[in-house]
Amino acid sequence: MNQNTKDTIRLYVDAKYTSPYAMSAYVALLEKGVKFELVTVDLAAKTHHQTAYTRISLTQRVPTLECGDFSLSESSAITEYIDEVFPGMALYPKSPELRARARQVQAWLRSDLMPIRVERSTLVNFYGQKYPPLSAEAKAAADSLIFFAESLLPPGAENLFSEWSIADTDLALMLNRLAMHGDEVPARLREYAQHQWQRASVQSWVHQKRPAL
Amino acid sequence: MNQNTKDTIRLYVDAKYTSPYAMSAYVALLEKGVKFELVTVDLAAKTHHQTAYTRISLTQRVPTLECGDFSLSESSAITEYIDEVFPGMALYPKSPELRARARQVQAWLRSDLMPIRVERSTLVNFYGQKYPPLSAEAKAAADSLIFFAESLLPPGAENLFSEWSIADTDLALMLNRLAMHGDEVPARLREYAQHQWQRASVQSWVHQKRPAL
Ligand SMILES: [Ca+2]
Ligand SMILES: [Ca+2]
Ligand SMILES: [Ca+2]
Ligand SMILES: [Ca+2]
Repeated sequence: MNQNTKDTIRLYVDAKYTSPYAMSAYVALLEKGVKFELVTVDLAAKTHHQTAYTRISLTQRVPTLECGDFSLSESSAITEYIDEVFPGMALYPKSPELRARARQVQAWLRSDLMPIRVERSTLVNFYGQKYPPLSAEAKAAADSLIFFAESLLPPGAENLFSEWSIADTDLALMLNRLAMHGDEVPARLREYAQHQWQRASVQSWVHQKRPAL
Repeated sequence: MNQNTKDTIRLYVDAKYTSPYAMSAYVALLEKGVKFELVTVDLAAKTHHQTAYTRISLTQRVPTLECGDFSLSESSAITEYIDEVFPGMALYPKSPELRARARQVQAWLRSDLMPIRVERSTLVNFYGQKYPPLSAEAKAAADSLIFFAESLLPPGAENLFSEWSIADTDLALMLNRLAMHGDEVPARLREYAQHQWQRASVQSWVHQKRPAL
């Protein structure tokens, strides 16, 4: 695909801009320099638009990427697709082993760590929300996350791999659920997550104008 | 990578052979004709091997693929890696749009439909287990699954795309949690899932010698 196509590219995201998966797809498009329309979907209000949205996303999820008559849901499928069809900045490492590791990071963050995702929703990151202390279960999940990140991140590194990848954005968001809430996170992981948070594409998402809670 | 390497390839799976994700990685290796050792991990018995396994899988999950000093967890990352590094049968479609759709299927099945995964565990498929009727929540998830599969599967097709892909194995397993239990599934989806279940690589997994429950 190239940007000369007449098809408008649209990214559908949640109306509060709190979905970490929507953020990942948004960051991917910005990193590639793709021009697109950002469309918000109010998932809370199950509106009359439901049927229309189902035509675009069979699973009614955000994010959804629409390119002409092709539309795609699931953020990791979206970031892979963006990386394959648009020129520019690579979103994944080139070596099969490191690319596999990046995919492992993305898949793990999306299929595990549920207690962190529940007890430290991304309202922490985007609305400054405060929650009660972590349950024992969430503490165990935090320990797994920290062990994983410490094992993969080389000492002193700003990125997981030699170059930035979309897995950094995803991993940093998960770490920042804890770090930005004030939960215990080892200093070098806190610094890594802060550094990733300052990336221009991430800051562009952070600064979306959000409705009051 | 090629099969002349001296490194033994190992796939670590659960000791009851009930993980649908382990099955997916196993099927991928068989479809490629890769020679490998199948190693079972008794996740229920948190043994002294825990530390040894953590060295291979940072997240202590199955499946894990080990190729020499590279090891990888998360089944969708494993099937992508296998497709990239081994010659032979393609596991994903070639067109970026269809490959993206296959990834969407894999990602969705791994991050949603939790009530089906809980109320129709794969003990249904591999041990003939029977469970109570579906809850309202699980019925709603079943409706989403059926809508999704009916929308993607062309009329009369044996595969989602023109050729078989690993997404067929994954989608059919999810449908078969319902169909093999006797829950309502439209006839053409039941036939699709049955057809996929008969695939030699899937049958090889089905016929693993399982311990008593
Ligand atoms: Ca869709
Ligand atoms: Ca999604
Ligand atoms: Ca690992
Ligand atoms: Ca896994």
